Amino acid sequence: MTNKVPVGVSNRHLHLSSADIETLFGAGYELKPLKELSQPGQYAAEEVVTVLGPKGSIEKVRVLGPARNQTQVEVSKTDSFKLGITPPVRDSGDLSESSSIILKGPKGQVELKEGAIIAQRHIHMHTSDAEKLGLKDKQLVSVKTEGKRSVIFNNVLARVKDSFALEFHIDTDEANCAELKNGELVEIIK
Amino acid sequence: MTNKVPVGVSNRHLHLSSADIETLFGAGYELKPLKELSQPGQYAAEEVVTVLGPKGSIEKVRVLGPARNQTQVEVSKTDSFKLGITPPVRDSGDLSESSSIILKGPKGQVELKEGAIIAQRHIHMHTSDAEKLGLKDKQLVSVKTEGKRSVIFNNVLARVKDSFALEFHIDTDEANCAELKNGELVEIIK
Repeated sequence: MTNKVPVGVSNRHLHLSSADIETLFGAGYELKPLKELSQPGQYAAEEVVTVLGPKGSIEKVRVLGPARNQTQVEVSKTDSFKLGITPPVRDSGDLSESSSIILKGPKGQVELKEGAIIAQRHIHMHTSDAEKLGLKDKQLVSVKTEGKRSVIFNNVLARVKDSFALEFHIDTDEANCAELKNGELVEIIK
Repeated sequence: MTNKVPVGVSNRHLHLSSADIETLFGAGYELKPLKELSQPGQYAAEEVVTVLGPKGSIEKVRVLGPARNQTQVEVSKTDSFKLGITPPVRDSGDLSESSSIILKGPKGQVELKEGAIIAQRHIHMHTSDAEKLGLKDKQLVSVKTEGKRSVIFNNVLARVKDSFALEFHIDTDEANCAELKNGELVEIIK
């Protein structure tokens, strides 16, 4: 059994609640899928919004679908300096006391009291992958990369679900630090 | 003996040759020191230039002094995407077949055939530090960081000289990836 896993680099993006979709894009609006993502059922939508912090803004931040229960904005540390916010490093969905942020769409604006995070790096895997790798949901592992900028990422969260496909999710800071590209194979170290 | 070393984060910057200083700022021009850097004799100058690549430009890139034999532009991988260049990861001074780049100053423009690199992370150390740490010039070590985004940086170059002060030099991508700040202590692993 190999312990290799393909890299998936996430640029800044956001997930929207149905209510916030209507505020930003109009009553009854539904996201238009643009491109399927590697995780089954997930897609990049045609829609983009402007994200505003106290120090600056970033335009054309991609919305991912489908809608979620709570709006979540995922930025990199680099982005956070531009915006002037200090988001915590968090697992997806864990938004308690995360950074406040403003979203601006073509039809309206949403002021989030909390919702902006830096995503904790993680490995999505199907239950069958986890069995083969001898890993459990929420287990922390390390991941080693090769090359001149070789690093070992510690505190990588294993996320196991029957709807997940095997992929190591990192943000653009992590990808640029280690010179990693989408689809590159890296090694899980337990 | 401790194996801890303080972090120094380098933002994009450049070193200029005397000839290029004159082209950019005018005949007979000399850099004006603004702030001493941690490495003895090195300083951030008052002068900034615009750096232009085929895809985009970055304004107000800081010049570091004193002048060097060859002009060298140090950017992050993140910067390189904005500029549209693919600089190699290199030790300072190793500019052969590095990226071409254009510099624009108040008095003129310099077109470099080569000169833009992504700096290879390295630890500056005085000869006495190297002795205490049991390291030699050009030896490769690893460096471990703590916290939620803990990483181990491999291929860290030890650079030993009597004019160096102990400091682990990384760029902004590496700092943001590991959530490191100037002066923070990290651990050398041989």
